[in-house]
Amino acid sequence: MIIVMKHGSPEADLRKVVEKVEAMGLHTDISAGETQTIIGVLGDVTQVSTEDFEGMAGVEKVLRVQKPYKLASRDFRPMDTVVEVGPLRVGGGYLGVIAGPCSVESEAQVVEIARRLKAAGAHALRGGAYKPRTNPYAFQGHKEDGLKMLAAARAETGLPIVTEVVTPADVETVARYADVMQIGARNMQNYLLLSEVGRAHKPVLLKRGMSATLEELCCAAEYIMAESSKQVILCERGIRTFETHSRNTLSLCAVPALKEMTHLPVIVDPSHGTGKRAWVAAMTRAAVAAGADGLIIEAHVEPERALTDGFQTISCDDFARLMDDVRKIAEVVGRKIGVCTSAAAA
Amino acid sequence: MIIVMKHGSPEADLRKVVEKVEAMGLHTDISAGETQTIIGVLGDVTQVSTEDFEGMAGVEKVLRVQKPYKLASRDFRPMDTVVEVGPLRVGGGYLGVIAGPCSVESEAQVVEIARRLKAAGAHALRGGAYKPRTNPYAFQGHKEDGLKMLAAARAETGLPIVTEVVTPADVETVARYADVMQIGARNMQNYLLLSEVGRAHKPVLLKRGMSATLEELCCAAEYIMAESSKQVILCERGIRTFETHSRNTLSLCAVPALKEMTHLPVIVDPSHGTGKRAWVAAMTRAAVAAGADGLIIEAHVEPERALTDGFQTISCDDFARLMDDVRKIAEVVGRKIGVCTSAAAA
Amino acid sequence: MIIVMKHGSPEADLRKVVEKVEAMGLHTDISAGETQTIIGVLGDVTQVSTEDFEGMAGVEKVLRVQKPYKLASRDFRPMDTVVEVGPLRVGGGYLGVIAGPCSVESEAQVVEIARRLKAAGAHALRGGAYKPRTNPYAFQGHKEDGLKMLAAARAETGLPIVTEVVTPADVETVARYADVMQIGARNMQNYLLLSEVGRAHKPVLLKRGMSATLEELCCAAEYIMAESSKQVILCERGIRTFETHSRNTLSLCAVPALKEMTHLPVIVDPSHGTGKRAWVAAMTRAAVAAGADGLIIEAHVEPERALTDGFQTISCDDFARLMDDVRKIAEVVGRKIGVCTSAAAA
Amino acid sequence: MIIVMKHGSPEADLRKVVEKVEAMGLHTDISAGETQTIIGVLGDVTQVSTEDFEGMAGVEKVLRVQKPYKLASRDFRPMDTVVEVGPLRVGGGYLGVIAGPCSVESEAQVVEIARRLKAAGAHALRGGAYKPRTNPYAFQGHKEDGLKMLAAARAETGLPIVTEVVTPADVETVARYADVMQIGARNMQNYLLLSEVGRAHKPVLLKRGMSATLEELCCAAEYIMAESSKQVILCERGIRTFETHSRNTLSLCAVPALKEMTHLPVIVDPSHGTGKRAWVAAMTRAAVAAGADGLIIEAHVEPERALTDGFQTISCDDFARLMDDVRKIAEVVGRKIGVCTSAAAA
Repeated sequence: MIIVMKHGSPEADLRKVVEKVEAMGLHTDISAGETQTIIGVLGDVTQVSTEDFEGMAGVEKVLRVQKPYKLASRDFRPMDTVVEVGPLRVGGGYLGVIAGPCSVESEAQVVEIARRLKAAGAHALRGGAYKPRTNPYAFQGHKEDGLKMLAAARAETGLPIVTEVVTPADVETVARYADVMQIGARNMQNYLLLSEVGRAHKPVLLKRGMSATLEELCCAAEYIMAESSKQVILCERGIRTFETHSRNTLSLCAVPALKEMTHLPVIVDPSHGTGKRAWVAAMTRAAVAAGADGLIIEAHVEPERALTDGFQTISCDDFARLMDDVRKIAEVVGRKIGVCTSAAAA
Repeated sequence: MIIVMKHGSPEADLRKVVEKVEAMGLHTDISAGETQTIIGVLGDVTQVSTEDFEGMAGVEKVLRVQKPYKLASRDFRPMDTVVEVGPLRVGGGYLGVIAGPCSVESEAQVVEIARRLKAAGAHALRGGAYKPRTNPYAFQGHKEDGLKMLAAARAETGLPIVTEVVTPADVETVARYADVMQIGARNMQNYLLLSEVGRAHKPVLLKRGMSATLEELCCAAEYIMAESSKQVILCERGIRTFETHSRNTLSLCAVPALKEMTHLPVIVDPSHGTGKRAWVAAMTRAAVAAGADGLIIEAHVEPERALTDGFQTISCDDFARLMDDVRKIAEVVGRKIGVCTSAAAA
Repeated sequence: MIIVMKHGSPEADLRKVVEKVEAMGLHTDISAGETQTIIGVLGDVTQVSTEDFEGMAGVEKVLRVQKPYKLASRDFRPMDTVVEVGPLRVGGGYLGVIAGPCSVESEAQVVEIARRLKAAGAHALRGGAYKPRTNPYAFQGHKEDGLKMLAAARAETGLPIVTEVVTPADVETVARYADVMQIGARNMQNYLLLSEVGRAHKPVLLKRGMSATLEELCCAAEYIMAESSKQVILCERGIRTFETHSRNTLSLCAVPALKEMTHLPVIVDPSHGTGKRAWVAAMTRAAVAAGADGLIIEAHVEPERALTDGFQTISCDDFARLMDDVRKIAEVVGRKIGVCTSAAAA
Repeated sequence: MIIVMKHGSPEADLRKVVEKVEAMGLHTDISAGETQTIIGVLGDVTQVSTEDFEGMAGVEKVLRVQKPYKLASRDFRPMDTVVEVGPLRVGGGYLGVIAGPCSVESEAQVVEIARRLKAAGAHALRGGAYKPRTNPYAFQGHKEDGLKMLAAARAETGLPIVTEVVTPADVETVARYADVMQIGARNMQNYLLLSEVGRAHKPVLLKRGMSATLEELCCAAEYIMAESSKQVILCERGIRTFETHSRNTLSLCAVPALKEMTHLPVIVDPSHGTGKRAWVAAMTRAAVAAGADGLIIEAHVEPERALTDGFQTISCDDFARLMDDVRKIAEVVGRKIGVCTSAAAA
């Protein structure tokens, strides 16, 4: 951590800052420049916040050099984390593809979709049983019944299930059915939920909040990893900016940036990242080319009849065609992509 | 709702859209312009989403005209809602001032601060017992013990208590102590929490999410109001933009904008809205001049020693001086501001 | 400037950085922390950019401590700059009010508006003769004829003229008529225009670009000040964010922030800052309360008939009423506000 | 255009709006819904702005349905525009690659870079002779001497030249040397420059402003096309958002979005779009996969010694390796990519 003192601030201010640093068991290194004095804070500053110094008299700014997360940082674990659940392998050179409907509507629907996506090459099935909705009067999901429908689709196809959990009280129930527990963008900073999910002994798919920085995303992963789970998949799904042509602004540069910061796998959601069916294929290809470790795509047998998110959902046929391109581009960028061979009861 | 068809889209696409509208029990009004055909959707569209049509073939865009919230809308209730708890009155021409430390640190601390703020003219005491923190290793609040310390300060001063609840499981406990339950910015779209708080029969202070639109804020209020509670205070506390000089970008224009959209009172948080102690006074004055119905300000006896948010916390002495300006500007803009005379032990 | 080396970067990388620093005639101060090595760059770094080091091997990040502007910085000139032109005084405790139509439409229009605004207390007249428009087919202003109409209004009322110049070739012409030359938001980084205007020996009103940081605004002022003109007024007029309820997001916190960074006066444009007539009064009051040194407001005799920007233009009658509040709030915040008594023909 | 009247607004307001529409030679179609009245405006509204109605009494909002640009719109010209200059072909299924140093530093430098890039497969040479810089004290380019150096490189390699023009007065000079004239992001709304360049009878590369919407980008192209030039290449180069990990947020979804809106070719600048050398390759691959019609990449023999933008410039060797991936991904997405065989001295 670096503390920059104000131009012309009195010696006494500097002394107070140094005392506070030392009271925390840390050391200082002071550079008195011609126009400004800079205090380097040395030692383990993981639990120290820039806030601790920003309000002090004479302090102009406080710059954090070390990262506020540790378990998630590549500095402390250089090797890629690989998340593997049945046919799904994400990270460490593997590209995993998760696909399925936005909402689980009925057992027939989700089983049919799962069969078709598996045939097209998907490695896992997504589907929402608990749906957070902006409009309080809109469909909120089938809840535990939805989880049972997903389990039926898994029994039928062998595809592991990725599904969202929205509140700590549901973690135990969701963990009973899900193979990978998803934290949605709106809950990325729901810290109690993160901790609870971290204790559930299941891999976690953590979506970036729509206004979260990459550092905040890594801190959210750290909340999970500070509990037992070390299997966290990060997901770029678009951020909120002044752009209105797409639902969110998909920031694919987050892929190489995150892969420098952390050893965790990074996947992309081109459905929320565009909000428009016609653009999903282009952004899927781009995500693979950008080096993503995986994809999560909304697909449905009849997207125009989907109960939720139909406007950004592609058909199972389009998904199958798109997978051909995914395989070709994955090869160019050196990503292995598993063929889903495990089946029903196997 | 208005559905704009693509230039040159076939008649069949139009027919399908009209059928879907009618299947929802709604009517259409079709304007065939020279370059584009526009379908007006008439009837009660509260439960209809633009999503329902956006993905359909031939549809260029879907524009919502009616608001997706009803109970919170000024269209359906023109008169201002006034929230009144003890000496605190917010809305309907009243300006209420809530102040206190970011975190409750000890009973002695919070009682002392409450006394001094009351003397300076505050109408309610804020203080965090449950603290959501970005860094998992940082201080997370004293929890129920913190609530007891707040209750002690209320017993001492008569100031009602405003405190945050962060998860549905804590609502009952927090409701036992709090006079106003606060939903923080990170939880504005934690819908289960909103609903749970809506059932607690207490007024709610709802902070705007850092990337939430005003419409989403009103929808979040609607979640609460769809339960029993109709006493919701909205709070502008700054949004996330490209600006880095302030912690958040305080958007004071949200005050007149929200007051057009909704009958609920609108207050401002100049502490989070600036993130810098030196700018709190200027933004407090500006908020009152902009027509805010209230303020929530972080104040501490010794801001430099505050456990959290010290950098944006003002001293009780500065708060007292600032209240003089608040009273004068309130008068210019026609806001009544109560003098806190009720007191328990005082 | 501070250069942070990557965790584990080789000694040779450090040496290359130090050599580059020294080749620029600057010195280094090296702190070897437990996890990272930090190089302080000492000396006059005004002409050094973070870019000069960001791409070098082993460098993690480069942090600028000193400001990249000098003439505009309060560090080098602590006393407020006051801009004074006839009855207009801005800065140093004075609040100056500039008002007038978006576009100059006719001599009769602008003279009539000028008379009424002067009677209401305005200190200067704004009016656009050269209009940059997003739509190439829209009205682009009366150009030099418009300037002559403004001059007629000045002759009639004694109000100095503030008007925009959009390209270097027009600077000489505009300078012949204008008392204050305005640089619009879209031209804030049109550096050749800034330099040309800086040579015109007239005060300059420089609007913040819609995505400019405060530092970039100060750098733009530095371009002007690096030429002969030292009389620059900065203007906050709203930035582009994800918010769509207002045309721009007026960031009033820029007022206290800029006044710390620079000695130049800071004014606010509540018309562009809201984009909506009904919100102009609230944001005008808020701007004064925030400590602005002045205002620039779009006003018209018949706003609904204005050729441009009518939706954010207030009537002269509303302006007169608003000035009463401006005077009262100015008094609360200790701003002097001149009465316009000087007059040419009046 | 659609005008939505306020809930409960009087009949007289409606009548005034209708009169104004008719006075413009347009027709109306009125839908009186249960809660709101909606006025459809029919006829050629190219020269009508939403502003014309937004400020009128009783109007809630005005929605533009038709696009404010015509020559650039795909509605009016469905076929792709192809820009072709020597070996460079952009659009209509062709992928063109422009590369070169940020600044032209010396003839030897630029000739050497041009040779190496041509050998690696580049189709055109970029290089800045006029450099707009945030810091007024930084290197501003070699101006006309720089253009001569570029011409020397063209003579040597046959690569056409792409170079920026920053002010109307320089258009004639730059047009004498350049094959494609570039408008930089900061000048995207410098309308006089756009018009002047539009009269120069040269293809134009128009970069998106850092806070410009896609509609504003198309309107800027319309300014150029309203003059003689119809050969405009649009360029996504990243927008300004809250993200700080990259210099700009590269919005690759702009590629498919723009290709729906306009027939003009769309290219991507992964250098400014990342601001970091290490991420350029990933974003280059992603841009091609997203369907871009071309690329503009900063490359230098010794990026660490580049006078400007070194931190985001790749080496000629890295460029050569990257071109292999570009060719493979281009094939997957069905883009033809020319081999540069024409050459002057070669």
